[in-house]
Amino acid sequence: MKILIIGGNGTIGKKVTSYFADNNEIIIGSRTTGDVTVDITNSDSIKSMFDKTGNLDGIICIAGEAKWSDFNDLTEEDYYIGLNSKLMGQVNVVRIGKNYLNQNGSITLSTGILADDPVVKTASAAMVNGGIHSFVRAVALELENGMRVNAVSLGMVEDSYDKYKDYFPGHNPIPMNKVINAYVRSVQGKINGEIIRVYD
Amino acid sequence: MKILIIGGNGTIGKKVTSYFADNNEIIIGSRTTGDVTVDITNSDSIKSMFDKTGNLDGIICIAGEAKWSDFNDLTEEDYYIGLNSKLMGQVNVVRIGKNYLNQNGSITLSTGILADDPVVKTASAAMVNGGIHSFVRAVALELENGMRVNAVSLGMVEDSYDKYKDYFPGHNPIPMNKVINAYVRSVQGKINGEIIRVYD
Repeated sequence: MKILIIGGNGTIGKKVTSYFADNNEIIIGSRTTGDVTVDITNSDSIKSMFDKTGNLDGIICIAGEAKWSDFNDLTEEDYYIGLNSKLMGQVNVVRIGKNYLNQNGSITLSTGILADDPVVKTASAAMVNGGIHSFVRAVALELENGMRVNAVSLGMVEDSYDKYKDYFPGHNPIPMNKVINAYVRSVQGKINGEIIRVYD
Repeated sequence: MKILIIGGNGTIGKKVTSYFADNNEIIIGSRTTGDVTVDITNSDSIKSMFDKTGNLDGIICIAGEAKWSDFNDLTEEDYYIGLNSKLMGQVNVVRIGKNYLNQNGSITLSTGILADDPVVKTASAAMVNGGIHSFVRAVALELENGMRVNAVSLGMVEDSYDKYKDYFPGHNPIPMNKVINAYVRSVQGKINGEIIRVYD
């Protein structure tokens, strides 16, 4: 399969890329250092990326940011960081990417446990993740030609444990082999419109 | 209690208003015809509304719109209708409204069954509702002084049956007394951070 992995150089992305690279043609999309560069807050940049990749069998998006801050400090503008990046960035990857997807191709988005089980400082980040969950379920009703869309929703991952552990008291880190398997389930399975939750 | 009902003149709002008016001081917020006018897509307008209402014991928001259309037809701009109105409008009602809320006061937002069980044409509308669900759960972790926030998520309501029935094949209309009770549970109960689902 020919698979685009947006964010394929990130903490999670590089593990996912490493797995799929064994048996597939991989194109890495990244803000600065990938095979193709992309600013996912900009739909023209997304379109331009897909023009360069050409048709694909799989699109994986492990990209997008949202502002973390105490609820009392989050400004209206802060919320739009997440809305324009992790939320609409991923929406636009589906909206535009479906036109470059081969029959039976899949799109896999990335969210996280905050959607279901938020922690302090995540009013914006949780909101964005929850929005993607409902979006994925809705879009799956309308995709054609066997195309599928799913989201992988991970708990705090092992490789980010040191960075995030203080924000997630009592959360158990998710081993990277389970992280990889969540993406494999979406890309190589037949499921559509599912939220693949990997929590522990 | 002194309760602001934004959208208190709408299909659902007027039934909710009618119930609470029996034993409470009600202020209706509306785009054009309420006791106070408000454009919930505009945070300055929201602030100005709360300056007029003064401190409150309860805030109910039954307002906000999102674009319904086939996924293939929804433009990037179409998504921002819902993001700016039903999503960020309600976020801003909480963000600003909490500063006008008395101790132990409650804020009740409105979403809908699309968040959990979308239908065709609702990629944007479902997304907005799902985002609010996660937002409510996250914010509830951080509110102070006994303040509470919940969301009422309704199935297709009886009073909108004729308008929406073709969009919701097989959905059972929710009787208006159950609709009212969902808001009562949030305002008069003690729950915090809950999604009050009324589906049938």
